[in-house]
Amino acid sequence: MTSATEFPLSQPEMTFETSAGSLIRRTVLPNGLRILSEAMPASSSATLGFWVGVGSRDELAQDLSAGASGFGSTHFLEHLLFKGTPTRSALDIAIAFDSVGGEHNALTAKEYTCYYARVRDEDVSMATTVLADMIASSELDPEEFERERGVILEELAMREDDPGTAVWERFFEAVLGEHPLARAIGGTPDTINACTREAVLEHYRRNYRPEDVVISAAGAIDHDSLVADVSAALEAAGWDLSVRSEPVARRSLVAVETTRATDVFVEYRPIEQVHLLIGGAGIAMRDERWLVMSVLNSILGGGMSSRLFQEIREKRGLAYSVYSFSTSYSDTGVFGLGAACTPAKTREVADLMLAELRLLAEDGVTEEEMSRALGQLSGASALALEDSDARMSRLGRADLLVGEFLDLDATLARLSAVTAEDVRDLARDLAARPLTITAVGAIEENIFAGFGESPEGKN
Amino acid sequence: MTSATEFPLSQPEMTFETSAGSLIRRTVLPNGLRILSEAMPASSSATLGFWVGVGSRDELAQDLSAGASGFGSTHFLEHLLFKGTPTRSALDIAIAFDSVGGEHNALTAKEYTCYYARVRDEDVSMATTVLADMIASSELDPEEFERERGVILEELAMREDDPGTAVWERFFEAVLGEHPLARAIGGTPDTINACTREAVLEHYRRNYRPEDVVISAAGAIDHDSLVADVSAALEAAGWDLSVRSEPVARRSLVAVETTRATDVFVEYRPIEQVHLLIGGAGIAMRDERWLVMSVLNSILGGGMSSRLFQEIREKRGLAYSVYSFSTSYSDTGVFGLGAACTPAKTREVADLMLAELRLLAEDGVTEEEMSRALGQLSGASALALEDSDARMSRLGRADLLVGEFLDLDATLARLSAVTAEDVRDLARDLAARPLTITAVGAIEENIFAGFGESPEGKN
Repeated sequence: MTSATEFPLSQPEMTFETSAGSLIRRTVLPNGLRILSEAMPASSSATLGFWVGVGSRDELAQDLSAGASGFGSTHFLEHLLFKGTPTRSALDIAIAFDSVGGEHNALTAKEYTCYYARVRDEDVSMATTVLADMIASSELDPEEFERERGVILEELAMREDDPGTAVWERFFEAVLGEHPLARAIGGTPDTINACTREAVLEHYRRNYRPEDVVISAAGAIDHDSLVADVSAALEAAGWDLSVRSEPVARRSLVAVETTRATDVFVEYRPIEQVHLLIGGAGIAMRDERWLVMSVLNSILGGGMSSRLFQEIREKRGLAYSVYSFSTSYSDTGVFGLGAACTPAKTREVADLMLAELRLLAEDGVTEEEMSRALGQLSGASALALEDSDARMSRLGRADLLVGEFLDLDATLARLSAVTAEDVRDLARDLAARPLTITAVGAIEENIFAGFGESPEGKN
Repeated sequence: MTSATEFPLSQPEMTFETSAGSLIRRTVLPNGLRILSEAMPASSSATLGFWVGVGSRDELAQDLSAGASGFGSTHFLEHLLFKGTPTRSALDIAIAFDSVGGEHNALTAKEYTCYYARVRDEDVSMATTVLADMIASSELDPEEFERERGVILEELAMREDDPGTAVWERFFEAVLGEHPLARAIGGTPDTINACTREAVLEHYRRNYRPEDVVISAAGAIDHDSLVADVSAALEAAGWDLSVRSEPVARRSLVAVETTRATDVFVEYRPIEQVHLLIGGAGIAMRDERWLVMSVLNSILGGGMSSRLFQEIREKRGLAYSVYSFSTSYSDTGVFGLGAACTPAKTREVADLMLAELRLLAEDGVTEEEMSRALGQLSGASALALEDSDARMSRLGRADLLVGEFLDLDATLARLSAVTAEDVRDLARDLAARPLTITAVGAIEENIFAGFGESPEGKN
């Protein structure tokens, strides 16, 4: 056993103790599939995640069946994995989790897909077996395929009706342009209508490969039992655990165009509020400034004491929701400031938001803000780890997306090294990038005329 | 110490052990304020809730300042409690929680208001002190009042823009008619614009009385320290803990009109999906059938294996979201079936939903469904209790709203006594009540012509 606070996830068999005293174990099967667990002794339940390293961005690189659309096929496939295997019908899968009161769902993202469940300790083995069967031997029955198309079209319609979701999708499209990360995860009604079972099946066979699967679990977990259950279920589903297949270069990383001028995109909708996002290209996942970005976000828009909340909601009462955010991927990221407000206040809110970003870039942050941000991030991280969901997710992301595991103390040590200058430098970098403003609501594009042109961001 | 599984919350000082082995303590201060805690030994954080027994339904009975609107004043007051006391500014309150990474928010409901926080163990005393100060000595500063009016109007606009929220508010109005529970919690833009500081201050003084306050906490909690912290903070804020004030009859319970014919309410909106609710008056909180209702909901629309999910989503692909629900208050409740789908499918979905309710009323449920529902409810209840939020909430609700505490084993014992006949009888009762159908989306009322007239609910 190695007692470590930070660890490259490089060895097939690893055991290490976190600063919180929990034990993490990692096993890599001969076929490349990774299994990680974090035992939480006081827990009487567990969360399991089956992570597959394929997301909507990977749809572009596919050589799909003639004429079929690939956009949205990752999410379509995720739905179909609940629809049955040779030994379990869709109803069997639903009953397996419902009858024990388990939570059971899946998430398709731009760079991964995750199937997860939270169950009591006595149901962990069942949950492992069912999830493994779904991942390895789903049938993609043609009738189920057609019915599920209707369900997915409803899901897209629901997302489209939510202005907060719509503005987010428009913003990514506007900031990332031709980059494959720009596209909405679920596809569009057109691509879903054009999607064929053959295309989704091809996507499944090509991308659900053992070496791209990470299984992570936290809570009342016995690692050896987990490995045994996963192995037995995958072999029963027809996977050969002994042979590693040839690596496939699936994802092409793409540079993001960051030399455009300020760009405005407005979608008119006859609704009460305008949903507004201002921002641009951010930082990639392994950018060494990721913790600087966390501190920046905490100070700028991370809580009720943050600058945006204080200036826009507390001092002026202009919005109910106002925040900043940053999201990162393999090769790029997106950062921004967001708010929702009535149409008449939109320009003022946009100007104030930009002014706060520029102020941060020009004058930096105070030591009091630095210390508050450190307290906020360390407290929130500690609170999150009370929860087996958060620990399962931390493990899965570390191995699938980052390649390195940091426990709480290691994260805090790195956080403490972030300086006020680091934050100001990052703010300068971000504020100097081409900015995009995206809005959905009852306004016209011309309300943003001259936006950002005066140095203070106020006109 | 009494080892008990179910307990009337009637004694000023009580200690009892739950079936999960945790210890619950209850203290009633001489002024009537109740303090309950559940210690979870393995936890290093805690959730605190300050519950006040006043909600939006109580606004009707008020004798407000001349000409001022009372509707929405409970929620308005909740916002103002974050705005400062004689010893803490709004920013101080925000910083207190942000600087330790705590979660900190409040919820206004129809029969209560709850202020809560989740913090690490070392921050429990701070959180208790700040929440007690907010409850007992908020200033309702006139300038803060005016600014917050703008924030609340934005919050109402956000809710109005969400069709899923809007249909819910319309449904309550349609089912409950003139009952004070029918009104939306936040009021309307008109009532918020008409609301005065004097009216909200009067509401605060009248209703935030020690005997209507329950403080509940779960996690890393020491009961004696909690009682000491609460007492010290409330005395510092000027509350007299030694004297019990005269009881005030605040809430008038009202019978619900259940003899109307089937009623249809449609709000046209040019959006993709129609949000649909079908149901009627349900059961009150202390109705002995509350666990029968839980079983009924589990079978009818509580999970992926439920009848509604199987019939409407799995077999026909007509909707992404479909479910049933029941919500209960002191004197009545509301039950219903909900879905969202594209306009062309709306009538079919509505007919299918009603057919499932009628089928349940006519043919009852199978033993397999009963056993699955029992498994689902017991598993989900056990999972929820891993979480200090859920335990805090269970304690607060038990004391403020129900007057009796049931631990997991006691709940399961009562659940096991529910029979298939109980479920069918309740379904018959519900199906025989006047039904209301409410929809928000791009349809006209006439698509529901003849709805529910044929005995099968299909035309």
